Amino acid sequence: MSWHLVGKESHEPTKSVAVGDIHIGGSEIVVVAGPCAVESESQIIETARTVRAMGASLLRGGAYKPRSSPYSFQGLAEDGLKLLHQAKEITGLAIVTEVMDPRDIELVARYADLLQVGSRNMQNFPLLRELGRCGRPILLKRGLAATIEEWLLAAEHVMAQGNDQIILCERGVRTFEPMTRNTLDLAAVSLVKQISHLPVIVDPSHATGRWRLIQPMSLAAVAAGADGLMIEVHPAPDHALSDGPQSLTPASFHRLMQSLGPVARAVGRDLPGEKRE
Amino acid sequence: MSWHLVGKESHEPTKSVAVGDIHIGGSEIVVVAGPCAVESESQIIETARTVRAMGASLLRGGAYKPRSSPYSFQGLAEDGLKLLHQAKEITGLAIVTEVMDPRDIELVARYADLLQVGSRNMQNFPLLRELGRCGRPILLKRGLAATIEEWLLAAEHVMAQGNDQIILCERGVRTFEPMTRNTLDLAAVSLVKQISHLPVIVDPSHATGRWRLIQPMSLAAVAAGADGLMIEVHPAPDHALSDGPQSLTPASFHRLMQSLGPVARAVGRDLPGEKRE
Amino acid sequence: MSWHLVGKESHEPTKSVAVGDIHIGGSEIVVVAGPCAVESESQIIETARTVRAMGASLLRGGAYKPRSSPYSFQGLAEDGLKLLHQAKEITGLAIVTEVMDPRDIELVARYADLLQVGSRNMQNFPLLRELGRCGRPILLKRGLAATIEEWLLAAEHVMAQGNDQIILCERGVRTFEPMTRNTLDLAAVSLVKQISHLPVIVDPSHATGRWRLIQPMSLAAVAAGADGLMIEVHPAPDHALSDGPQSLTPASFHRLMQSLGPVARAVGRDLPGEKRE
Amino acid sequence: MSWHLVGKESHEPTKSVAVGDIHIGGSEIVVVAGPCAVESESQIIETARTVRAMGASLLRGGAYKPRSSPYSFQGLAEDGLKLLHQAKEITGLAIVTEVMDPRDIELVARYADLLQVGSRNMQNFPLLRELGRCGRPILLKRGLAATIEEWLLAAEHVMAQGNDQIILCERGVRTFEPMTRNTLDLAAVSLVKQISHLPVIVDPSHATGRWRLIQPMSLAAVAAGADGLMIEVHPAPDHALSDGPQSLTPASFHRLMQSLGPVARAVGRDLPGEKRE
Repeated sequence: MSWHLVGKESHEPTKSVAVGDIHIGGSEIVVVAGPCAVESESQIIETARTVRAMGASLLRGGAYKPRSSPYSFQGLAEDGLKLLHQAKEITGLAIVTEVMDPRDIELVARYADLLQVGSRNMQNFPLLRELGRCGRPILLKRGLAATIEEWLLAAEHVMAQGNDQIILCERGVRTFEPMTRNTLDLAAVSLVKQISHLPVIVDPSHATGRWRLIQPMSLAAVAAGADGLMIEVHPAPDHALSDGPQSLTPASFHRLMQSLGPVARAVGRDLPGEKRE
Repeated sequence: MSWHLVGKESHEPTKSVAVGDIHIGGSEIVVVAGPCAVESESQIIETARTVRAMGASLLRGGAYKPRSSPYSFQGLAEDGLKLLHQAKEITGLAIVTEVMDPRDIELVARYADLLQVGSRNMQNFPLLRELGRCGRPILLKRGLAATIEEWLLAAEHVMAQGNDQIILCERGVRTFEPMTRNTLDLAAVSLVKQISHLPVIVDPSHATGRWRLIQPMSLAAVAAGADGLMIEVHPAPDHALSDGPQSLTPASFHRLMQSLGPVARAVGRDLPGEKRE
Repeated sequence: MSWHLVGKESHEPTKSVAVGDIHIGGSEIVVVAGPCAVESESQIIETARTVRAMGASLLRGGAYKPRSSPYSFQGLAEDGLKLLHQAKEITGLAIVTEVMDPRDIELVARYADLLQVGSRNMQNFPLLRELGRCGRPILLKRGLAATIEEWLLAAEHVMAQGNDQIILCERGVRTFEPMTRNTLDLAAVSLVKQISHLPVIVDPSHATGRWRLIQPMSLAAVAAGADGLMIEVHPAPDHALSDGPQSLTPASFHRLMQSLGPVARAVGRDLPGEKRE
Repeated sequence: MSWHLVGKESHEPTKSVAVGDIHIGGSEIVVVAGPCAVESESQIIETARTVRAMGASLLRGGAYKPRSSPYSFQGLAEDGLKLLHQAKEITGLAIVTEVMDPRDIELVARYADLLQVGSRNMQNFPLLRELGRCGRPILLKRGLAATIEEWLLAAEHVMAQGNDQIILCERGVRTFEPMTRNTLDLAAVSLVKQISHLPVIVDPSHATGRWRLIQPMSLAAVAAGADGLMIEVHPAPDHALSDGPQSLTPASFHRLMQSLGPVARAVGRDLPGEKRE
């Protein structure tokens, strides 16, 4: 293989990555939840409280949004980061948010616990190199049509700069199928777990684009060996500024969280809440 | 939607399909196992006994093999069907085998309990029409690059002739990813279960082409809502005339079967062996 | 490579295939034109006369139509074949039409000069084998998501039965792009011409699904080395029973034919009409 | 449609973009040629002289190379830019080179006439926005799996910042086909020319990855309506530090340039050399 740092021998376990006091890649299935974009104080605080109560460990929310159109909502920028920080102080949830510009890394790292590289930037090499020197854990989403090898090599770009705190995120790839937004590639999750020591989480929200598929794909991801999930939750999906059709309501998210435990235990994992009890 | 017969209201359950005394689409997860191709009496009988003992309910094995090259092994034809029948008499396993030619349907139906339409023939409409009149249940694999809509419409072609005993099989679709043979589309399984009353099983062997991915993808398929699995098992994969790299040994198949029960129960299903006990 | 009969050394020329007194694969660019489906006597006769006058050498028209839905128009069957034959008697155009069922080959061969295998049947091996023994030239369309190797091996299936009169047809492959029906792969045309002695024609109508792209893609195909074109023409596309949006009107087809000659000559080819003058 | 600035009415012509004294998008077919990466003074100067003599109008060469692996040659950075500038002073060729990092734009713009956004950065929105304010024309390559709509919207991101000097470049998209590096989508070129006023050029080198396909795909691109070509030429492809198998030798490039004129004239265009005469 063409990588040196991200690989592992088949008998070696996944090396977990710490985000605050959460460990991703250990025995626990970790859930990241929150809205696509931070829209307002009430929206993000309310969502944070809700997903915290239901068992999420990290809060997601975009302050800088990569949008195909320049006329779509682009995020609240630093104001959004501040709202995320406020939600963290209130709920104790660690914060995950996307950074798109190498010049923003220092600012984003001031507010966020886990810095996300989005699909469109998986091969933005200047960004990856800077993140390799930022001292924060990185969430590296798979590119829209990236091969597994390219994905691991993107992680290698970060690690080659000295940062080995990387979590991968499968979020579906582009195919000809029009009934789902992307095609979720769970075999990639299992394969990466076999050939790399990096933890892998799954984003079924972007992968499918349909809220009714989030729960079955979450269960399937856990059964496939994923170390965690990243779920879009919005207090009122019909009024979301982006990604409404793929966002869960709090009630649907609750049902999802209730269903996760049995599957996690069936494959020898558990959920954080359950271990704490 | 453009179909009339294969659809369902969201509150309606899957309608199970009987193959011999096996019901596919009910509460039990049904496992079809066996070699890619019937190669010899000892190979198919030995495999049948092995997979029967480990919990499989149906025996698969190709007598007519669709092969990209005319110089590859094309199957034993009627001799292969006779060996499958012999394996059934010895083990009691129901038989699944592919039919490619409308002129062979009558012959194949004499020996097989479930007639398989392979991916390359998903839109072979003369074949589908004849199968709609053959009086046997049909296993309809998704085409190499068929949309979900085309797959359901292919089933509609069969049903429109009067045969509603159809089981769908997801087996991966073509993408740019070279590290797996195809890309397994488990979201399609969940989606089809939501919009159609037809049972759906999953073939992780053809979907991934790598034996080490069969177990995690089988567990993921069950978690996603699949009604069953179709697994390639060969007594000596290294000597198989086709599909060796994706075939499980009996020992690996045993491990897979042991791991299925907990995941099935975690999603409210069970395995036939367990119910019988 | 895995083929024996369809290949060639790089210095060897394409071997032309005769269809009636038309030679496909020689210096002339041959145009096949006509409606998607034979709908009525007036429709097919009128179209035949029109395309004949504008320079087409062969008439296309489906009598057996492979349709995703069982409720779409399936073609006029033998009545359609008879109408094609009538159009041939009136205009002298050779006839190309699709055969989907091995049991129909004898009948179709009675009326048609060139038997077409459609994309959905590219790997219908019983059909290919029978066509290998039918004594008629074969037009083999590339499958919806067939690799170049699989396409050539499908031709090898025919040739292995003794029929070396095969013309390949590129008609686009499936991709994620929604603005065209398929993605026309002209590099495949050039590559196949370099590694195989078989003639290759291009169907820009099915490849693009948009009539305004037919002319530029036809010119590009000729520049890429294609030996001919297959164009959908309908006297009234808005009223066509199938494929209206991708059909040219007679006026558009005339403009296309006028534009072909200069490009053909620019790459050292010519059109049949021009040679006759 | 979702864009406002890049679109056009169907009767409006392409608006040409000036790069130095070259106009791209007018009646002349403009050729950009040069090596994948600037490797040394002798390599780039020799190549520049060669391609200039044969009719190229612009010199390409990477100083900052996006490479999947962090261990591959990453380019000579500013030293490479200086060598490109030296080549420009000697030959008069305008310079095209890639910029990957918004922080490098000012530096690159000091040496280059046309700033290239590579496929991996087509949706690097901070980069696009900065390029919208840089005062230089932009060459925007289509993303590895970008839809036509996303490609035009990426251009809209640049234009929305005030820079309307944008040239698009089709370079193939990802598909399942392994015999070519990508699948060249010439229908996208024709379609974009019909719905947008932006000039479009084609890069057959990256699209196919095979030097023997460069000439036929170049001719096809011109026939499809492309406004120019971008061709990899290396004095010794077997010793290139990157992209050797898809680079033309000077001799092959000469043959390509000789063949372009007739096809250009066949579609009502011409080459710059010919107009000068």
